[in-house]
Amino acid sequence: MHKVPVGVLGASGYAGRELCGLIARHPKLELAFASANEQRGQRARIGAAEVTYVATEDAPLNRAEVVFTALPHGASALWVGNARASGARVVDLSSDFRPGAGEAEAPYGLTELMRAKIPGAAIVANPGCYPTAILVALAPLLKAGSVVPGATINVSAASGVTGAGYSARPDLLFAEVAEDFRAYAVGNEHRHLAEMRAVAIELGAKDNDILFTPHLLPVARGILATITVPVNEFTDDPSALWHEFYRGEPFIEIVDQPPSLRDVVRRNVVRLSVTKAANVRQPTLIIISAIDNLMKGAAGQALQNANLLLGLNEQAGLPA
Amino acid sequence: MHKVPVGVLGASGYAGRELCGLIARHPKLELAFASANEQRGQRARIGAAEVTYVATEDAPLNRAEVVFTALPHGASALWVGNARASGARVVDLSSDFRPGAGEAEAPYGLTELMRAKIPGAAIVANPGCYPTAILVALAPLLKAGSVVPGATINVSAASGVTGAGYSARPDLLFAEVAEDFRAYAVGNEHRHLAEMRAVAIELGAKDNDILFTPHLLPVARGILATITVPVNEFTDDPSALWHEFYRGEPFIEIVDQPPSLRDVVRRNVVRLSVTKAANVRQPTLIIISAIDNLMKGAAGQALQNANLLLGLNEQAGLPA
Amino acid sequence: MHKVPVGVLGASGYAGRELCGLIARHPKLELAFASANEQRGQRARIGAAEVTYVATEDAPLNRAEVVFTALPHGASALWVGNARASGARVVDLSSDFRPGAGEAEAPYGLTELMRAKIPGAAIVANPGCYPTAILVALAPLLKAGSVVPGATINVSAASGVTGAGYSARPDLLFAEVAEDFRAYAVGNEHRHLAEMRAVAIELGAKDNDILFTPHLLPVARGILATITVPVNEFTDDPSALWHEFYRGEPFIEIVDQPPSLRDVVRRNVVRLSVTKAANVRQPTLIIISAIDNLMKGAAGQALQNANLLLGLNEQAGLPA
Amino acid sequence: MHKVPVGVLGASGYAGRELCGLIARHPKLELAFASANEQRGQRARIGAAEVTYVATEDAPLNRAEVVFTALPHGASALWVGNARASGARVVDLSSDFRPGAGEAEAPYGLTELMRAKIPGAAIVANPGCYPTAILVALAPLLKAGSVVPGATINVSAASGVTGAGYSARPDLLFAEVAEDFRAYAVGNEHRHLAEMRAVAIELGAKDNDILFTPHLLPVARGILATITVPVNEFTDDPSALWHEFYRGEPFIEIVDQPPSLRDVVRRNVVRLSVTKAANVRQPTLIIISAIDNLMKGAAGQALQNANLLLGLNEQAGLPA
Repeated sequence: MHKVPVGVLGASGYAGRELCGLIARHPKLELAFASANEQRGQRARIGAAEVTYVATEDAPLNRAEVVFTALPHGASALWVGNARASGARVVDLSSDFRPGAGEAEAPYGLTELMRAKIPGAAIVANPGCYPTAILVALAPLLKAGSVVPGATINVSAASGVTGAGYSARPDLLFAEVAEDFRAYAVGNEHRHLAEMRAVAIELGAKDNDILFTPHLLPVARGILATITVPVNEFTDDPSALWHEFYRGEPFIEIVDQPPSLRDVVRRNVVRLSVTKAANVRQPTLIIISAIDNLMKGAAGQALQNANLLLGLNEQAGLPA
Repeated sequence: MHKVPVGVLGASGYAGRELCGLIARHPKLELAFASANEQRGQRARIGAAEVTYVATEDAPLNRAEVVFTALPHGASALWVGNARASGARVVDLSSDFRPGAGEAEAPYGLTELMRAKIPGAAIVANPGCYPTAILVALAPLLKAGSVVPGATINVSAASGVTGAGYSARPDLLFAEVAEDFRAYAVGNEHRHLAEMRAVAIELGAKDNDILFTPHLLPVARGILATITVPVNEFTDDPSALWHEFYRGEPFIEIVDQPPSLRDVVRRNVVRLSVTKAANVRQPTLIIISAIDNLMKGAAGQALQNANLLLGLNEQAGLPA
Repeated sequence: MHKVPVGVLGASGYAGRELCGLIARHPKLELAFASANEQRGQRARIGAAEVTYVATEDAPLNRAEVVFTALPHGASALWVGNARASGARVVDLSSDFRPGAGEAEAPYGLTELMRAKIPGAAIVANPGCYPTAILVALAPLLKAGSVVPGATINVSAASGVTGAGYSARPDLLFAEVAEDFRAYAVGNEHRHLAEMRAVAIELGAKDNDILFTPHLLPVARGILATITVPVNEFTDDPSALWHEFYRGEPFIEIVDQPPSLRDVVRRNVVRLSVTKAANVRQPTLIIISAIDNLMKGAAGQALQNANLLLGLNEQAGLPA
Repeated sequence: MHKVPVGVLGASGYAGRELCGLIARHPKLELAFASANEQRGQRARIGAAEVTYVATEDAPLNRAEVVFTALPHGASALWVGNARASGARVVDLSSDFRPGAGEAEAPYGLTELMRAKIPGAAIVANPGCYPTAILVALAPLLKAGSVVPGATINVSAASGVTGAGYSARPDLLFAEVAEDFRAYAVGNEHRHLAEMRAVAIELGAKDNDILFTPHLLPVARGILATITVPVNEFTDDPSALWHEFYRGEPFIEIVDQPPSLRDVVRRNVVRLSVTKAANVRQPTLIIISAIDNLMKGAAGQALQNANLLLGLNEQAGLPA
């Protein structure tokens, strides 16, 4: 059976490696190349796959129908251009083409919300991990106009350390992270905020600020976002709106019990619960949204978008 | 040197064991008894101390000048009474005598906020772990009248597993907690809410609801609370109010960098930072407050209160 | 496509759940029932599967062509008999029918070593997790007669906590296991020893005692065994014997770099390295052998054996 | 009260920081300086202490009566010389002056075994962490001549990641170490072997090789060594020899139940158990020895030696 060749630029980081592993198990794709400058010439075992890294500048871009760019933010745009010039379509995992980036934007690959724009795109801007967990949770409310205009949406979220990338920072050493828990980017300054704000407005936010505090968890993978949203009024079944909005979506799970990381790791899903807040005057919903930051938050969603670009089954090669 | 005899009822749980360890190192106290029904007759090594457990009903209450009751909520009140009848003064670590419990209340032992009432008390209601972290953070703002009247105070907090006690629940097994993170009591239903609400009102809250979502961390000990508070206006130095309010307090640390668990574990402190939220219309402060749930959140604060009851140096035997 | 119905007795423990998850993804099998007495009537999500537990006595044994018994040691034999009486063939994950158990033995399902006996068996005694890691490592040496006669084979092994089963023991709580490491069954008294000794003799051990010390790791899954074996003489390439012995085996990996747990978790493989010991007079080989205790050490190997019983591809449904 | 000034060179690593923390709590010592080239000028909080780092070349060596050198192996000898030239006595935590190092040796600071030589030393070679755990365990047997001549002593040991130092190596990142376990220096090639061999001979080993395989644990601190020793014959009480040998030693604990890491972390002790091996022809003892690699394995023992150098109580400032 003929397989479609795809390539990965930046394949030694956590998201890049996850992508290579998914591609190796994908029934219709094959890995044309995997680039990693520092590991050039080295072989690495990734899940069931063995790859030999090439330097990014040596990657045979013209052999791939889709190129995934998992390069650092800022460094990606150049290689997106090179891949385009070689005739490939691109799924870019960096923030360079995302909403709010202030540059030329590409269609935003939050697949369930923007599915119509993906198949014809030359470049897909794959969403950030936090925005994926949070915007999937907020979209039904925002589109329904149910958020109190002018109200602040409060998000406290926590991520496993792979979210910080495969970088040898002393503060990410085992002995520094184990038995610890800390907030970062405190003060509503996280670089994902522009992306979330821009998409939230597109989805219907009315002067709704997002107050976002991320935390670093002593776990390898997973994001859990705890979101409180002031709403105009309660309905009997608080999650009915989400069940309706995401009906038939294979990668969105609306559940009664708040999800935890172990429900979602190694799976390409967003799993969320919606609960009414008791003991407060202002009707408020509490949404708990969980993803695997490397799957639905990065490599899995990138593959989901590539499936759409290539006219394949959107679920092909993805662990639900 | 004569030492003051004190006893611990419920000494096999995490808080009770921590207390026994602190008492063993205390320069002026000695352990008269340690009770644990299931372990009666067994010896246990706790830090530098060796204890032999007695059954609670066999504890020689009349030998202790202060009795610490670290029994389950609901079961404590009876033994507080028995200890009082034996002539001992009591620091009760359960919720039975705390504000909002709906029963006879005792002076609330959040020492820095209520210090004047402790020395003369017959019974001190030692605060819950979450309330300690959160109320110390909120007190200066509430007392200053700086919280927007009617605004909701949002608290997302996370606790290590010792907060759930030493109980053999399957959901607390290593293989279930490691690599996981989950919210619990979702819906603003946590049993600590009544305590926090009651004290917040006493401190000056004006129709301010508290919206509180706790989470379970894959760490043994520590609580980190991320608190967002709408305020009437910003001041130049957002933490000046706390520096002023807690000036000279040895167990309260106001810091510029947000605290993390490893800053506070095994120490009897509340460590907190105050940051202005950027990118939101409503002036809002973000307070990150960290404690060790077994120290300042339980045994350490209990000992701090006992020091006051006995006229000892408040810091005696407490690791700052 | 017709699928073969199989059943799992004891499906709420770690091995039983792993089996249900594997069966749900197996291309040729379907789950006829999953029993768990305490959870009877409850639904549970296991990987991609949803199961509804029945009581073991209500399991429709006659509907399954193969029954997996993952019941406690001692309790399994009865249900193996019941399943046989219903016409099913059985893969028994307990120790009841293993070599050295002193009872009626069944063919021993260490597949790579005993493959010829499996397809025709009525009952397969699925090996213990430690024996799998250790016997696969020793077999080539023992069969080649290369171990010094009378020499002691020293094994220090460590297992993740799922090896202890899904039981609410206080010593397996997160707060007791995290940041800890401990030996157990110290004194060469582990219940897996009889199984290892019996098979080692069958493989050719000549008065070779096994001195085995297991340890409990603060990880969820995986076993690493560090084995030192006095040998008659060194060969140039210490691992050549293993490469030859296991040539073509899809689930045995002979590697140059010592394997670590993360090389094998969630995979049905034994991965091992062989190294000559420097700085000792007696020629000695050091074998590091790693498995996932729930996969090749339990559920994966059970499925591998079931594939053989049913005449299916031995690798079907198994993550290599 | 006058305190004795001491200094720490290399105070930003794990052992150096631990030392600064111990010195801050020591009743008779005060920290004259703490050097760290990369952190020069920075303040750091270490336990209850705050230090301001100076560059090593700026350290006022002549102000300290004892200088602790916690510099990398190889780099230490120069600064030991400089400190000596300034009139200070030195406790060197590197391997530069240890037995087997092939250079000028200094008295070996395994305090309980070599106590007589410490008080008068100009330089004390503080032992490595593994040698401390292993040699304390072996000394009574070797001195008694009870080890079978020519027999191999087998040691499988595991260490927390702080044993690898505070270095930003990708393989020590949280996401690489958590849920993993691996052997290293496989092949009996660890750099601590020469130190162990040299001291073992001094203690009475008769052609006894040591076969040593270390492992990396997903914990921050602690070493557990599992040692098997062929002995000439069993005695009734296998641990009587150790009880006798270490009678009165405050930092050596001989216990019946095998020790685990949590028994020793943050304590300056060696805790060990001795068990007869069942089911083997050759009488063999199994010794489980546990230490905190940063305390008795580094900073704690260094302070114990400094106490002796200075004529202080050997236990001063040390958590038993």
